[in-house]
Amino acid sequence: MAEIRHVDVLEPLLKANDYLARRLQQEWTDRGTLVVNLLSSPGAGKTTLLEATLRQMRDRFRILVLEGDIETDRDAERIRALGVDAVQITTGGTCHLEAHMIEQAWRPLADRTGYDFIFIENVGNLVCPASYALGEHLRVVLLSVPEGDDKPKKYPKAFRTASVLLITKWDLLPHFDFNPDHAQREALDLNPDLTVLRLSARTGEGIDAWIRLLEESRQRIRSSR
Amino acid sequence: MAEIRHVDVLEPLLKANDYLARRLQQEWTDRGTLVVNLLSSPGAGKTTLLEATLRQMRDRFRILVLEGDIETDRDAERIRALGVDAVQITTGGTCHLEAHMIEQAWRPLADRTGYDFIFIENVGNLVCPASYALGEHLRVVLLSVPEGDDKPKKYPKAFRTASVLLITKWDLLPHFDFNPDHAQREALDLNPDLTVLRLSARTGEGIDAWIRLLEESRQRIRSSR
Repeated sequence: MAEIRHVDVLEPLLKANDYLARRLQQEWTDRGTLVVNLLSSPGAGKTTLLEATLRQMRDRFRILVLEGDIETDRDAERIRALGVDAVQITTGGTCHLEAHMIEQAWRPLADRTGYDFIFIENVGNLVCPASYALGEHLRVVLLSVPEGDDKPKKYPKAFRTASVLLITKWDLLPHFDFNPDHAQREALDLNPDLTVLRLSARTGEGIDAWIRLLEESRQRIRSSR
Repeated sequence: MAEIRHVDVLEPLLKANDYLARRLQQEWTDRGTLVVNLLSSPGAGKTTLLEATLRQMRDRFRILVLEGDIETDRDAERIRALGVDAVQITTGGTCHLEAHMIEQAWRPLADRTGYDFIFIENVGNLVCPASYALGEHLRVVLLSVPEGDDKPKKYPKAFRTASVLLITKWDLLPHFDFNPDHAQREALDLNPDLTVLRLSARTGEGIDAWIRLLEESRQRIRSSR
C-alpha cells in the first residue's frame, strides 16, 4: 500500500458542520431527493404548512419529515397522523438543528426507500438556525402576519441566507397592521434573490404556487445530476 | 499592608454571567429600582406592551428601557417617541442579551438619575435568552395568542425560569384555535409559581393588573432593603 505523503487542500477547510452539510447535500442530489429546511419563529406555522403541503403531495411522492424540537415529539405525531414518515429530533435545549443531527436521523432510513422530498422543520427560532447549514437545497423562512412587517431587518441572517420567503397566515391580514409590501421590500433589500410567496395554510390560498415551486426545484436538482 | 494569604470561597464560583448578574441585581435592589426582563419570540408584542405600559406609568415614575436587538434601533426609537429614556443594545448577531451588555448600557446612566423601573426588552427568541440572567428581579415571558397554545412544553426553559407569563394579543382569541386554559396548564406544570395574566395592549384589557403587579413588585424589593 502506497504511503500517503501529501494531501492537496484545494480550498479552506470547512468547519465540521459545513463539511458534513455539503456531503449530505451531494448525497441527496445524487439520489434525486430535494431537501427543504423550514425556519421561523415559534408559532409562525411551520407544522401547519407542512400538513397542508403533505395532504396535496403524499399520494404522488415519497416524503420524509425530520422534526426538530427542544422537547416533545408532538410535531412528528401530527405528521405521522397523515400517513407520512416522520422522525422527531429533540435537541434537549440546543436552539437549532445541526448537520450531524440530520445525519443521525436520516442515515438509518437512507437505504430503506428513496425519498423524493425531505422536509426538515427546524427548531422555532428566527436567529440561531440561520447559522447552520443542514445540507438543504432550499432554505425557506416563514414570516407570519401576526409577527409584524418589521422583522426582516431585525433578524437579517435568516432572510439573507434563505432562498424562499413565505408570508404565512395570509388570511389574518385584515386583523393586523401588517404591510406585506414593506416586509417584502425589506427582505429583498437584504437578499435580492429571494422568492416571496404569500399563503394561508388554513384557506389554502397560495399553497398551489408553493407546491409548484417545490416540484420545479426537485426537477432542477434531478436534471443537474 | 497585610498580604492576602487565604480566600474562603463560600459557594461554588458562579459563571461570569451569573456573577455579574447577581452583582447588578444587588445594586438595583439597593437603589430601589425594579428591573424587568421581557422575553418572547419575535413579534409576540414586547415593544407594543411596553408602549402601553409606559403611557400609564411615565408620569408617575422614572423609567429606563434597554432595548436588545440583533440589528436596527427601531424599538428604542419607538420608546423615545413616548418621552421615556431608552438605550438600544444591538448584539450584532448574538441571539440573546448577556449581563455584561446590560452593565455597559446602564453604567453610564447609573448616577444621572435614580430610576424606579428598568425594563429590558430581550432579543426576540424564546430559547437562548432563558439561559442568561441579566440581574432582573422579574423575568416575564410573553406568549401571544397567534403562536399557539402548545408552546410552553416545546420551549420549556423560558417558562420554567420566568416568574410571570403574559398571554398577549388576547383580543385576537376569536380568530385563533388557541386554548388559554391548556397553555396555562402546561406552563404551570413546568413552573407552579408562575403568575399568569391575559392582556391586550391594543384594547387595554388586562393592562391594569399588569401595572399593579409591577408596582407591588417594586414595593416588595424596596421594603426588602
